[in-house]
Amino acid sequence: MSRPDERDIIRTIHGVLGNAKFTPEDAETFATDGRLTVVAVDTLVQSTDMPPNMRLRDAARKSIAACVSDFASKGARPLFGIISLNLPKVTAPQVRQIALGLRQASDEFGIRILGGDTNSGREFVFHACIFGEAEGIIPRNGARHDDLIFTSGAFGYAAAGLEMLKNGMRASPGFRRAAMESFARPQPRLDFALKCRKYLTSSMDSSDGLSATLNEMARQSRTKFVIHGMPTDGRLEEFARLNGLSPERLVFHGGEEYEIVFTAPEIHRHAILDVARSTRTRLFEIGRVRKGRSSVFVEKNGTTERLHDLGWRHFKR
Amino acid sequence: MSRPDERDIIRTIHGVLGNAKFTPEDAETFATDGRLTVVAVDTLVQSTDMPPNMRLRDAARKSIAACVSDFASKGARPLFGIISLNLPKVTAPQVRQIALGLRQASDEFGIRILGGDTNSGREFVFHACIFGEAEGIIPRNGARHDDLIFTSGAFGYAAAGLEMLKNGMRASPGFRRAAMESFARPQPRLDFALKCRKYLTSSMDSSDGLSATLNEMARQSRTKFVIHGMPTDGRLEEFARLNGLSPERLVFHGGEEYEIVFTAPEIHRHAILDVARSTRTRLFEIGRVRKGRSSVFVEKNGTTERLHDLGWRHFKR
Repeated sequence: MSRPDERDIIRTIHGVLGNAKFTPEDAETFATDGRLTVVAVDTLVQSTDMPPNMRLRDAARKSIAACVSDFASKGARPLFGIISLNLPKVTAPQVRQIALGLRQASDEFGIRILGGDTNSGREFVFHACIFGEAEGIIPRNGARHDDLIFTSGAFGYAAAGLEMLKNGMRASPGFRRAAMESFARPQPRLDFALKCRKYLTSSMDSSDGLSATLNEMARQSRTKFVIHGMPTDGRLEEFARLNGLSPERLVFHGGEEYEIVFTAPEIHRHAILDVARSTRTRLFEIGRVRKGRSSVFVEKNGTTERLHDLGWRHFKR
Repeated sequence: MSRPDERDIIRTIHGVLGNAKFTPEDAETFATDGRLTVVAVDTLVQSTDMPPNMRLRDAARKSIAACVSDFASKGARPLFGIISLNLPKVTAPQVRQIALGLRQASDEFGIRILGGDTNSGREFVFHACIFGEAEGIIPRNGARHDDLIFTSGAFGYAAAGLEMLKNGMRASPGFRRAAMESFARPQPRLDFALKCRKYLTSSMDSSDGLSATLNEMARQSRTKFVIHGMPTDGRLEEFARLNGLSPERLVFHGGEEYEIVFTAPEIHRHAILDVARSTRTRLFEIGRVRKGRSSVFVEKNGTTERLHDLGWRHFKR
């Protein structure tokens, strides 16, 4: 079987994307009607972000999903994408899997993929650059004294899924499925965020880990975040216990959750709960913003401990 | 010496870029006043695009220069950039070299770098995503019968420079310098293109190689391109002779030249020559557009030969 060359690859991808009238150009263009244009990028690198068992299709989708989660956290709608791929020697079925993953993301998130480029390299790299528009964005630095702190979903599942892909681990079939799903096919909270953006004072995508996210928001807002509940459930705690892991570590420092962490005045709690219900979003209210030095504290069993940013960072390990 | 982590890297880069007030966000935004937004991307991969002797600083600059050349070919002005880096284990001086290259490109081309992301990987990858605006772009498909065909500079130098970096080769010191410069620090023809965009009927960046570029323009314009002169000079021919290489091969099929290839009606020849003079652009008039099946022919010594697209393509080798 002969290896596809660049043209074959581009043709396959545009075919699967349904861009029948695709005409190659040097640059991609779109009109924006004078509104704010929003851009988010994400790079998924095989040696860093893809455990051996991760499917190419999921990796391709995930690079776009990560950008969509950034859009969700800013309350902005993604519209267009440009995708760059670095590929080692690939087979035609592999290219098709990648194209299918891009198509899936395009359909799922309503993103029109304008083009991109394809390069040979030592490993798979998926690079998504996503554009959209908004009247304004929800900042990271808007948290105010007395605001409530929420997350749009449970934490720890993705880290558990990654552990399973890498090391096996013991888990119930149901939890295993949910955790793998969370790692390999994360669901950004776009609908939820677009529908309740007007209530939020600050917001951030959590993919660097919950502790990193909370610390960054507290730092930018010059406030103290006091956390009184972990955004997770008994199934995660059970998995941690079974495998001798710390549930706190998985939840606060695991990373790879594409949730949004946000603050809002208490007066909007019910409206936000309503949006969560209508969009089937598993909302967790986890704490409150207080006056004080930029910091994050966790209250547990009557004691209060500083939560440091131990979020996952490239080049650290 | 401790290795820089992601924060150090980002801090270094923003420091060198002069973004003192940089506040990290999930997404980058800019207003566009209802005009057409133009986006070009380029990926420079170490194992594919960087011979061992190429400097990191030049590689970083080149990924942006390649996008600027795309903008030049469309007659559009680049304004903003988002840069993604994949880095293997790096030292702080290496990070600084990369930052300096980005800064240089930012200054040289008037591009404000909004942000980007940084990832660990098996090799260096520089990914530039550049945005700008325009009232319209010069298409690839606008060449008309009787138009003249031009290039904005000499061909073959970059391919010669690449050969030197890889294999040494014999060359005069002056030619060696010019060829290496052409490969490592290409000069996109932005000023020239912006000043004479109104005269051009079609245009394309030539970095995939002259034969690939001419064939693509002829194909999209459904015309025949007849080439009567090679856009190069005696120094390149001398280098080819010295090293037993074919000058035609270097010029038509070498690739890596960031020139623009364009067509224009004869009536604008003098105006275009004037712009070339004022912008110090080395213009070559190399042929004429004719009616006929989409194809490219080269006239030489009274005979006419078909010029096939042998341009460099990823995954071919």
